[in-house]
Amino acid sequence: MNLYDIQDPSFLKDLSIDELNLLAQDIRDFLIHHVSKTGGHLSSNLGIVELTMALHYSFDSPKDKIFFDVGHQSYVHKILTGRARSFDTLRQFNGMSGFQKRKESIHDVWEAGHSSTALSAAVGMAFARDLNHEDYAIIPVIGDAAMVGGESLEALNHLGSTSSKVIIVLNDNQMSISKNVGAIDQFLAHLRINVNYNKAKHEYKAFLNQSKYGKWLYDFSRNVKNYIKNQVVQDTIFTEFGVDYLGPIDGHDFRDLFRAFEKAKDIPGSVVVHVLTKKGKGYPYAEHDQTGKWHGVAPFDIVTGKMLTSYQEGEISWSECISHHLLQLMKQDQDIVAITPAMIEGSKMRELFNVYPERCFDVGIAEEHAMTFVTGLSVSKKKPFVSIYSSFLQRAYDQINHDLARINTFAFVSIDRCGLVGEDGETHHGVFDISFLSAIPNIVIGCPSCAKEAKMYMNTAFKKADRPYFMRISRSSIFDDETSVHEYIEIGSWTILQTCNKPQLIIISYGEKLSQIKKMYDQQDIIIVNARFIKPLDEAMLNMLATYHCPILVYETNLIYGGLNSLILLYYQSQGIDVAIHVLGIQDHFSPQGKIAELEQFEKIDLKALDNKVKELING
Amino acid sequence: MNLYDIQDPSFLKDLSIDELNLLAQDIRDFLIHHVSKTGGHLSSNLGIVELTMALHYSFDSPKDKIFFDVGHQSYVHKILTGRARSFDTLRQFNGMSGFQKRKESIHDVWEAGHSSTALSAAVGMAFARDLNHEDYAIIPVIGDAAMVGGESLEALNHLGSTSSKVIIVLNDNQMSISKNVGAIDQFLAHLRINVNYNKAKHEYKAFLNQSKYGKWLYDFSRNVKNYIKNQVVQDTIFTEFGVDYLGPIDGHDFRDLFRAFEKAKDIPGSVVVHVLTKKGKGYPYAEHDQTGKWHGVAPFDIVTGKMLTSYQEGEISWSECISHHLLQLMKQDQDIVAITPAMIEGSKMRELFNVYPERCFDVGIAEEHAMTFVTGLSVSKKKPFVSIYSSFLQRAYDQINHDLARINTFAFVSIDRCGLVGEDGETHHGVFDISFLSAIPNIVIGCPSCAKEAKMYMNTAFKKADRPYFMRISRSSIFDDETSVHEYIEIGSWTILQTCNKPQLIIISYGEKLSQIKKMYDQQDIIIVNARFIKPLDEAMLNMLATYHCPILVYETNLIYGGLNSLILLYYQSQGIDVAIHVLGIQDHFSPQGKIAELEQFEKIDLKALDNKVKELING
Repeated sequence: MNLYDIQDPSFLKDLSIDELNLLAQDIRDFLIHHVSKTGGHLSSNLGIVELTMALHYSFDSPKDKIFFDVGHQSYVHKILTGRARSFDTLRQFNGMSGFQKRKESIHDVWEAGHSSTALSAAVGMAFARDLNHEDYAIIPVIGDAAMVGGESLEALNHLGSTSSKVIIVLNDNQMSISKNVGAIDQFLAHLRINVNYNKAKHEYKAFLNQSKYGKWLYDFSRNVKNYIKNQVVQDTIFTEFGVDYLGPIDGHDFRDLFRAFEKAKDIPGSVVVHVLTKKGKGYPYAEHDQTGKWHGVAPFDIVTGKMLTSYQEGEISWSECISHHLLQLMKQDQDIVAITPAMIEGSKMRELFNVYPERCFDVGIAEEHAMTFVTGLSVSKKKPFVSIYSSFLQRAYDQINHDLARINTFAFVSIDRCGLVGEDGETHHGVFDISFLSAIPNIVIGCPSCAKEAKMYMNTAFKKADRPYFMRISRSSIFDDETSVHEYIEIGSWTILQTCNKPQLIIISYGEKLSQIKKMYDQQDIIIVNARFIKPLDEAMLNMLATYHCPILVYETNLIYGGLNSLILLYYQSQGIDVAIHVLGIQDHFSPQGKIAELEQFEKIDLKALDNKVKELING
Repeated sequence: MNLYDIQDPSFLKDLSIDELNLLAQDIRDFLIHHVSKTGGHLSSNLGIVELTMALHYSFDSPKDKIFFDVGHQSYVHKILTGRARSFDTLRQFNGMSGFQKRKESIHDVWEAGHSSTALSAAVGMAFARDLNHEDYAIIPVIGDAAMVGGESLEALNHLGSTSSKVIIVLNDNQMSISKNVGAIDQFLAHLRINVNYNKAKHEYKAFLNQSKYGKWLYDFSRNVKNYIKNQVVQDTIFTEFGVDYLGPIDGHDFRDLFRAFEKAKDIPGSVVVHVLTKKGKGYPYAEHDQTGKWHGVAPFDIVTGKMLTSYQEGEISWSECISHHLLQLMKQDQDIVAITPAMIEGSKMRELFNVYPERCFDVGIAEEHAMTFVTGLSVSKKKPFVSIYSSFLQRAYDQINHDLARINTFAFVSIDRCGLVGEDGETHHGVFDISFLSAIPNIVIGCPSCAKEAKMYMNTAFKKADRPYFMRISRSSIFDDETSVHEYIEIGSWTILQTCNKPQLIIISYGEKLSQIKKMYDQQDIIIVNARFIKPLDEAMLNMLATYHCPILVYETNLIYGGLNSLILLYYQSQGIDVAIHVLGIQDHFSPQGKIAELEQFEKIDLKALDNKVKELING
């Protein structure tokens, strides 16, 4: 059918199983076609086609509240709720979000971008419904990896002790972004083997129900089987949490799904419906992906599966550059260990895990645990390296503050995806970390402008190993021509990239934009300073710069609140030094989605905006 | 025995059971005597006397790593590791900490103050030990309430999938600070009934072992019993997590404890030893406390159990004042619901729970879940009030940012224990919240100077109900003479407490110190401004103040980094207004423990320091 004709999901209820299967195929074709052009989340959406259709068949959205943990797997939901036409603008500036968005549709009752919040929200909704004496179903859909995030388990513990009902759909694709970890995953693996047993049971029932004696035989054997099954299968970790369990269900079989949801409605209390799905289903490259490469994709060629990369010839990602250097350091120092919270691929740590499997730890989607775990390793004389995306680091704020920084022991935290990240939008921009980290005592925050500086910073940190070192890198790419760097860097030292005798302006900035800035103002009467440490500041240099008695412009691609500029203001204030400081940075709001260049323009922090500001300051 | 003679815990191994029981009594007497003078954590330490002794008997500290989640229950450990003499200085400025502290003793291998970090640290230590090919035991002791914090469950999930061994002692006193909540607690209650069965079994064994036939009979029956018991008892939530389970054990019976720890050593993998203890044991007032009143105590009279309060006549705590007013609002508006993460008593919410049990939710020690749960209630048209201590709010940073503020829906967050909190020390000071909250878009942060202002703020927030409202209150007390307040307040509006025509200085401050400041500078040529909103700032007033062309002194009792002063600097910078701003606030470090007055002096933010600064600025 023409997916553009869909207005709302109610039409599904009139379709036969065959028609539903045809529609599922249409939706898969649509997803592959569109995501190949725009980029986006592919595997998780291909895996959830029948499950999403079955949910909208069995329940009545928006009366019933169907929503998705994280939300990047809500594309099918978007198609079924009348948004197929917007897929041309998926993840584009001013276009449709790649996540659920309450403003986009009455069918989007919750929204996220970070993992493991859906159950907490569902418990809140359930209490609200019951207090209002309303009657509708609340159905959060959550992946197996997000299920073991601490917040999910806190919510499950709360839910299991109440009578308010939530129908939790556990979308178990047996991997998160990359392969799953942890005891609960092993436990789920144990449950998964029962899916064929459950299917066989239904076929057996259909067969026996053809005759009267058969039906009697079925009922008798079912009673025996149920007795055994109750002893063996249904005593799951969820029942220990006080929540009923149904499953496992084949997530690509409509009949099985319908049956499970009807049963879930009948159960008086909360229930977990355990659905097995296949990530990437229907697109061979994605279906056979074991590493998570097809989780979030750039535009790609459908036939060859080749993804377009925006990297220039000779460039590699910051993540890759850091991991290469870490591997060299790990070879020299056996105390170095590496940790990731479920981001082996994203953080380009695969090679580290291959070379040093016993010294590398994937703790799953568990940033809180990750950071205290790292502190535990550190007080036991290990030298931990941990890579976490800036926006996910937010979840470990207390562990950074209360554990790592307060105990003040060594760890190297590589903050990946700093600054604006582009199409993932407001939940993923790494623009808050300077603001929340800079007020935490004892820590060092570095912001390298090039690969060599990053490596020098790593060399120094692992050599000194006396306190928490944070290093900010962006999601973009760099030239990494000097693969073997052995130099050190003075902690807290800035450098002057361009100087002159009678400056009209001093530009202070950090990160990868500096080389372009230097080119822009080559030979001009402008001093350009590389503030490669956000904390501690280079106070001697700030004192020296003040003696020029010319305006200073701080250019940052992060929030102004709590940013470098604010730290410089505080420093000059503490010294009673009066300097005219100006700033270019992101204002106090959540930045939207779009290409990074578009967003920089929108936020008025692109190089053109910089140049306008520079001209304004120089010409008065 | 004289507890002052104890140097290290090795002497315990030479004592008989009778001697150990006598020592336990001495320790209890010591604890009651000392805590009655200094104040501190009483109930949890009285409950853990035998358990701590048994741990130091069965294991070899510091080779084996014994440590306590949170750490306020480590007093007995402190006595046994040679620190009895320091109890006179417990929780005093420059004295012994009320928590474990790595700098205090080689027996303190971990330290905390916030809940649910011990298992994560233990997993880190265990991996480090195994990588180093060392051989020692790692024994985190964690309470039943902290066990269900998300971070604990993340750590348990990680641990259960590895072969690295940790012996987790679950100190189950069947209440946290106040009564426990959640499904896991209900599950533990189910396990608890087995303690008598386990005890009877050992007595039965001792009886039968008196003869040869008896031994045979015992072995036979044990095999049968074990078979049944394995089916019934040992299939716990911990075994679902992949960790063995032992228990429940009577935590006041040395023989049972020794036997359990020896068995735990023999088990090849990680194990939870479930120990039942009685909070407050040995001091009747504490033992019979059902509400948590005797958890953390002020100095008290041993005979009468009467606690000394530092409140002046006619004063009540800020928490109580807020709760009283909330009760009035809840009466008028049935959509208002109240939430606490395990702090019913501390946040003085008991009456709310009594009057509106169905509209009040204690979610347990689960700040992350609490904040998203609140957001879920809010998007379902409820008006949630949640009270969280400032330092524990840190754990919900991501949920505040990514869920509540980004979705930008109503909630009222009462941040309790803001500013310096005194004797609990560096893990508990509420001095970071302005720094990490002020950079989050969409939220309002209020800081009332008196009870009436707080109530006006609450009236306004619940009436407008359009975004997240935060209100900071301290742990001190106030006069609450106007119990019925119906006025509103303009969001973002400051007030001038004292004005004059030709000011020599403008003081901007917030909170309860303002009335004293006003008294200090009564009739002087000083303008005093009540910055009752940290966000948004009163920009009109800031513009007006700038026209006086006199210095401004921002006086805050929180961190300078990210504080009100820094926000004012940013505002004037954005407007290109040149004003001389000075600041008094807490520098970039973790503040120590002590009386609040001592700490304010130490941080140079007491009223005397203010006055010195004022004189310096006025006299040039």
